[in-house]
Amino acid sequence: MVGYHLKARRLGIETPNEAHIFMHKDCHVCRAEGFAARTSIVVANGPKSVIATLYHVTGKLVGQSEAGLSEWAWNELGLTEGNEVTVSHAPPLESLSQIRGKVRGRKLDALSLRQIIADIAGGRYSGIHLSAFVTACAARGLDYEEIHGLTRAMIDAGEHISWGSRTVVDKHSIGGLPGNRTTPIVVAIAAACGLMIPKTSSRAITSPAGTADTMETMAPVELDLDTMRRVVENEGGCIAWGAAMGLSPTDDILIRVERVLDLDGEGQLVASILSKKVAAGATHLVLDVPVGPTAKVRSYESAQLLAQSVLDIGRSFGLQTKVVISDGSQPIGRGIGPALEAQDVLAVLRGDTMAPADLKDHSLALSATLLEMTGTADEGHGLPMAAACLSSGRAWTKFQRICEAQGGMRTPPAAAHRRVIGARQSGLVERIDSRRLSRVAKLAGAPDAKAAGVELHVRLGSPMSRGEPAYTVFAETPGELDYAMTYVEANPDIVGLTLT
Amino acid sequence: MVGYHLKARRLGIETPNEAHIFMHKDCHVCRAEGFAARTSIVVANGPKSVIATLYHVTGKLVGQSEAGLSEWAWNELGLTEGNEVTVSHAPPLESLSQIRGKVRGRKLDALSLRQIIADIAGGRYSGIHLSAFVTACAARGLDYEEIHGLTRAMIDAGEHISWGSRTVVDKHSIGGLPGNRTTPIVVAIAAACGLMIPKTSSRAITSPAGTADTMETMAPVELDLDTMRRVVENEGGCIAWGAAMGLSPTDDILIRVERVLDLDGEGQLVASILSKKVAAGATHLVLDVPVGPTAKVRSYESAQLLAQSVLDIGRSFGLQTKVVISDGSQPIGRGIGPALEAQDVLAVLRGDTMAPADLKDHSLALSATLLEMTGTADEGHGLPMAAACLSSGRAWTKFQRICEAQGGMRTPPAAAHRRVIGARQSGLVERIDSRRLSRVAKLAGAPDAKAAGVELHVRLGSPMSRGEPAYTVFAETPGELDYAMTYVEANPDIVGLTLT
Repeated sequence: MVGYHLKARRLGIETPNEAHIFMHKDCHVCRAEGFAARTSIVVANGPKSVIATLYHVTGKLVGQSEAGLSEWAWNELGLTEGNEVTVSHAPPLESLSQIRGKVRGRKLDALSLRQIIADIAGGRYSGIHLSAFVTACAARGLDYEEIHGLTRAMIDAGEHISWGSRTVVDKHSIGGLPGNRTTPIVVAIAAACGLMIPKTSSRAITSPAGTADTMETMAPVELDLDTMRRVVENEGGCIAWGAAMGLSPTDDILIRVERVLDLDGEGQLVASILSKKVAAGATHLVLDVPVGPTAKVRSYESAQLLAQSVLDIGRSFGLQTKVVISDGSQPIGRGIGPALEAQDVLAVLRGDTMAPADLKDHSLALSATLLEMTGTADEGHGLPMAAACLSSGRAWTKFQRICEAQGGMRTPPAAAHRRVIGARQSGLVERIDSRRLSRVAKLAGAPDAKAAGVELHVRLGSPMSRGEPAYTVFAETPGELDYAMTYVEANPDIVGLTLT
Repeated sequence: MVGYHLKARRLGIETPNEAHIFMHKDCHVCRAEGFAARTSIVVANGPKSVIATLYHVTGKLVGQSEAGLSEWAWNELGLTEGNEVTVSHAPPLESLSQIRGKVRGRKLDALSLRQIIADIAGGRYSGIHLSAFVTACAARGLDYEEIHGLTRAMIDAGEHISWGSRTVVDKHSIGGLPGNRTTPIVVAIAAACGLMIPKTSSRAITSPAGTADTMETMAPVELDLDTMRRVVENEGGCIAWGAAMGLSPTDDILIRVERVLDLDGEGQLVASILSKKVAAGATHLVLDVPVGPTAKVRSYESAQLLAQSVLDIGRSFGLQTKVVISDGSQPIGRGIGPALEAQDVLAVLRGDTMAPADLKDHSLALSATLLEMTGTADEGHGLPMAAACLSSGRAWTKFQRICEAQGGMRTPPAAAHRRVIGARQSGLVERIDSRRLSRVAKLAGAPDAKAAGVELHVRLGSPMSRGEPAYTVFAETPGELDYAMTYVEANPDIVGLTLT
């Protein structure tokens, strides 16, 4: 049975990473094949095929011998107007039984994980299936072997970059701390000091900005593998969006669901980090783990557990890791949101006197670790080497060259709408709620609205007078500003003061 | 901010229980409000509103001042061609944080469960959210208080039926055993013996047929509350589709996701059963729990745990329960699939000599329990009373009257395509895999294709010769028959033989 032929129709409906097919309810194929609504069916154009979710249509949207296709399906199948597609039943999703086993407490072995990841990579999991996998792993936890198996499966599902036998460094932050945008600075310093650092970053998962979102306000980040390789061979480093390169592609699919749920379990977090690093060919990794009451990692103990897991699993893939556990009790820098964070990065690189000192210091510490662990600097000499590189302007020059190599440097956009939030009373700042600040930035439109976000004007311990600006909310549209302000007004204690 | 006005357009796309809105990517509202793809937005027509998932559209499907709506959204909003709708940002989904807490092992209190169920009832959960809730509850388990809170919240989210102070009986089977279609028989016997049994049943969750699917091949089941009340007042009983009545409506939404995942956790199972029974006004319940290696409940111990949970939670809602744990080592009756199961039911009710004895005996045992627990029969006299009612034809007469009262009796459809599966060797039947038989029935089109399914020709211990029919696969279309046969051919041991 090869399936039935239908005329393909482009409907223009955007369904990122998911294929939808729209068929008339009275279509002869639906009736003959018994295609029920919301079932998964195979749609093929010659050798190319996708698994698509079927929606029944009544009325005139599609004819009875037509298959309406969403943009993602249309592009994946490489269709042009007038083409025909064939449709047939999708094979049963056997790997779901492995997820049911995990729900009941059974361990996922390497083969099961390989099957699950293969089904995800093949587009055979709907949002409901993906959510069950993510939730089951987070609720039941993953042990060493499961995380290893998941990482291996995720690496094998995508592209790999080989840099021969050279030392290749990388850097990763466990998110959750707004404004912690050290990557562009660390890459500039490391590359200026002669290290090779082909950095791939992600877009925001649950935060108001990912490094790729921030970097995109300064230079193009959607590089293909060849471009990335050319940039790195010429400049020693890059800051590119990982997903554009096909490294660990299932990670990006899982991240989309984790973002909807605002949930990422520890095992999946480790596999997500390491699969990208190993696939990108890294040999040395510095892992930044900020710890604080409103950061992603909330206690020193859980930071150590996470760090140990990354160290152990990383070693099994030939990746040497150093973990830097840092203070995550308040946001780093001033900006929260893509363009606002880029302004902080540029201030540090240019050596502005008003540049945020915490962002600078933290970037230097991470750079120093990379310089020492690769033997570029002797122990104890990493920090002065990194600091000299930054203060001399060599890092700034390198950053500009990297931006140019990636397609040309850009000026981050400014927001058209803003509102200053003043202190409700006088006192000392005793608490800054990073989670709720991130929420404000997201409600204001970040990360999709690049200029949107929050600029924080105070630090823990700052003395404030009543009415003095605590933070400013930026938005690109009045609707988004209103939306964020509704939340701000319902949450007057985001910056907590103690009476002096 | 009341939102923006757009012209509503009916696209004819069917999205059961979920609202979809299709807006042009360059639409002024999307830009001004920063509506991102796949976000949830509020769509309102005067006082009526739904939360809809937004899809961006390019091209000419919808204009820049139009809102394309799926059928469910169109109907929920009560729109007619030419109407305008307003769109605005959906409030943040606060109850998600309760689910994240559950994922991390925190208990769900009554208020959290009420918020989650209210958000589900309000259509504010997407498939991804629903899946996370179902999976987290199944993976972490629910304790007594959580199941109680969930049941309470589910009851309160829907309609209730009150029968005054009268005794109202009900019956429920924990699914998983194909062909266990005792309900129509038990309702007929109980009502003929003078009990009031307003039975609401569900459609299939993960099985090839639910009682409502089977009953629908014999009479209409989509009764509204008034019709159901009239049928029960006149005839003493009914067999109606619960969802059509608005009893515990969130249960039906959760069931849709559980069906996709083929997963229902114990706590949710208990809440699902009891919320429907309590909302329907039942005072006495007989719970049928078949136990077998391929049934839903696989051991006597887990049957007892489940039974205890239903007893305890039921009592707290004033519902008296008796549990009947039965043999679930093989399917009951011969048919698996709506129409095929209906044939078995009709054979038992009519007293055909070839009627399946196991279905008859099991129905009598359940009826006897109801007769005794309500004092209709003295202890030890329930079984003879039920048997007399059936053999005298009183139950058959009552069943026909109920069917007529529900809208008219129908003849179950017959399948156009069939294939007989013969034994591959001679021997004794030592194993019948109910799960895989159900799979075959589903692949053949059940429950959507009413006539599709499997008819089993053997019982455990039956002697067979090579080539003798073991079971027959029925389908309404050749495509479905082929699809089921592919699975049958890959699974030659569904009926396991031991050599004699």
